[in-house]
Amino acid sequence: NSSLKVFTLNSNPGLANEIVKSIGVELGKSSVQRFSDGEIQINIEESIRGCDVFVIQSTSDPVNEHLMELLIMIDALKRASAATINIVIPYYGYARQDRKARAREPITAKLVANLLETAGATRVLSIDLHAPQIQGFFDIPVDQLMAVPILASYFKQKELYDVVVVSPDHGGVTRARRLADRLKTPIAIIDKRRPRPNVAEVMNIIGDIEGKTAIIIDDIIDTAGTITLASNALLERGAKEVYACCTHPVLSGPAIERIESSSIKELVVTNSILLPEEKMIDKITQLSIASLMAEAIIRVYERQSVSTLFD
Amino acid sequence: NSSLKVFTLNSNPGLANEIVKSIGVELGKSSVQRFSDGEIQINIEESIRGCDVFVIQSTSDPVNEHLMELLIMIDALKRASAATINIVIPYYGYARQDRKARAREPITAKLVANLLETAGATRVLSIDLHAPQIQGFFDIPVDQLMAVPILASYFKQKELYDVVVVSPDHGGVTRARRLADRLKTPIAIIDKRRPRPNVAEVMNIIGDIEGKTAIIIDDIIDTAGTITLASNALLERGAKEVYACCTHPVLSGPAIERIESSSIKELVVTNSILLPEEKMIDKITQLSIASLMAEAIIRVYERQSVSTLFD
Ligand SMILES: Nc1ncnc2c1ncn2[C@@H]1O[C@H](COP(=O)(O)O)[C@@H](O)[C@H]1O
Ligand SMILES: Nc1ncnc2c1ncn2[C@@H]1O[C@H](COP(=O)(O)O)[C@@H](O)[C@H]1O
Repeated sequence: NSSLKVFTLNSNPGLANEIVKSIGVELGKSSVQRFSDGEIQINIEESIRGCDVFVIQSTSDPVNEHLMELLIMIDALKRASAATINIVIPYYGYARQDRKARAREPITAKLVANLLETAGATRVLSIDLHAPQIQGFFDIPVDQLMAVPILASYFKQKELYDVVVVSPDHGGVTRARRLADRLKTPIAIIDKRRPRPNVAEVMNIIGDIEGKTAIIIDDIIDTAGTITLASNALLERGAKEVYACCTHPVLSGPAIERIESSSIKELVVTNSILLPEEKMIDKITQLSIASLMAEAIIRVYERQSVSTLFD
Repeated sequence: NSSLKVFTLNSNPGLANEIVKSIGVELGKSSVQRFSDGEIQINIEESIRGCDVFVIQSTSDPVNEHLMELLIMIDALKRASAATINIVIPYYGYARQDRKARAREPITAKLVANLLETAGATRVLSIDLHAPQIQGFFDIPVDQLMAVPILASYFKQKELYDVVVVSPDHGGVTRARRLADRLKTPIAIIDKRRPRPNVAEVMNIIGDIEGKTAIIIDDIIDTAGTITLASNALLERGAKEVYACCTHPVLSGPAIERIESSSIKELVVTNSILLPEEKMIDKITQLSIASLMAEAIIRVYERQSVSTLFD
């Protein structure tokens, strides 16, 4: 493994450490510091000439800082003659700006893809990209992992009885179906509709949830508005109890307060985004994607298919 | 002027307002906001289809935020069918990372140029780029303005007697010469040398400063270490009094304290970078580059040469 090098930047060093431990290599030596005026200064402190380099960085909050760290690191690696520059982006920031919803809007998810390629990335590894189209924003290969197997294992060992997996919207049905297949349960869908403009949304539920344990699944939980309202709606319509899970715990603004005081029994997330101490409340369980990421890195390094990880 | 549109972002709205007033147009309507998780949300609130658009943004501290605002704005303008996207960057951040000083360093000034082009910029207007080579980092036209005429006018009206213009290092001699020519004075050069490794630098002065009023000129003043030490050295070697001036007042970290307690009589800067209230100390005079920028924008819009501005 002498030509495999794995570096981390500042967004999620804990995850990066777990990943290299799982692979059985040391983290590449580098430093990311700030000049007095806030400019990023990166030094790569070992030769990487001719190596297959992997850089682990989620573009989570502060997204612009984390993205620039990544771009500058890629530039430095390119100039230091890395053979391949594989960027491992567990959480891909700006993913929700993936289309023009209104006139004269940017498509920042596409811009970010272009920036990463321009800097010199040769391959991308991510998990549960917000929209599958984001793969197509890149002209370089993109491997996408899924957290569903990890979430499914966790819920299996809880031995919950009479479960239904719930998608919080129509866009998430495929994901819910995947989890339901692994748990061997039916699914239900929350069908949000606004009866008239400026009237509160109504949450209809499609599917049978009466007396069941519901597990809501989403890819990103940000301010937690949707998920906490969905939980209430499910309980009102007769669900016995509500769990929630997601891959990417953005958890910004009022999210933690909302979850704390919500009717959700437990929220299960991954460590694609580092949760600071104050967000690690009792109701939240964080599962690690490190060994999945490690396995994918090894496969990419060995020129094997990553997709077979999910067979 | 109906197809000329000038937008500002968040780094220096005061300068942008002065510029549009000087041109005689209104600022383009747009909003730059943050989602709850810190991602930038930009909306352009008027049609710019087929227009020559100018976006004013210094990539000053917080440099990564300001740069991303600019990149996202350029993306939005491109998708909204602007005819040309002219970026007006009075202060170009990361300009000092313009070469590999050590092995495996990034060249971030070049990376930033690539990012701006990738986003869709078609032309760049800046003032006193840290190194002339930065123009060559771009494959699109770059017009570069100079603050020397503005600084010279200011010092002329002070009617100082027996002046010498001082370059704080060998790299700045051309700039010092330009100011000296306009003030009709001689120049001197500070020649820093480190006699042995780990021994403090010695400041030699080349040129006659005895009894004279010295004006030190630099392009960027950041932590103000160089300039305050240079001032002391000049006074020790017999200068009567010391003024300092620069184009870009980065003034980070200890800069304000150092200037306040220094032997410098007055520091003259431009508004290429917005100075917050707490940096506006009595010793600092800020001159406006707005009418120069406005004139350059008009020339670019009218497809005339900008360089003749300095004939
Ligand atoms: N960082 C963000 N936080 C909240 N909403 C966002 C963010 N980025 C984009 N959006 C909005 O989210 C919507 C797209 O989300 P979705 O329908 O889940 O793909 C669009 O209306 C976007 O304007
Ligand atoms: N933002 C910054 N603040 C302080 N020093 C920097 C910064 N960016 C680059 N440098 C360093 O400044 C030196 C180049 O400055 P100069 O010789 O004036 O072009 C290099 O050693 C850089 O590592």
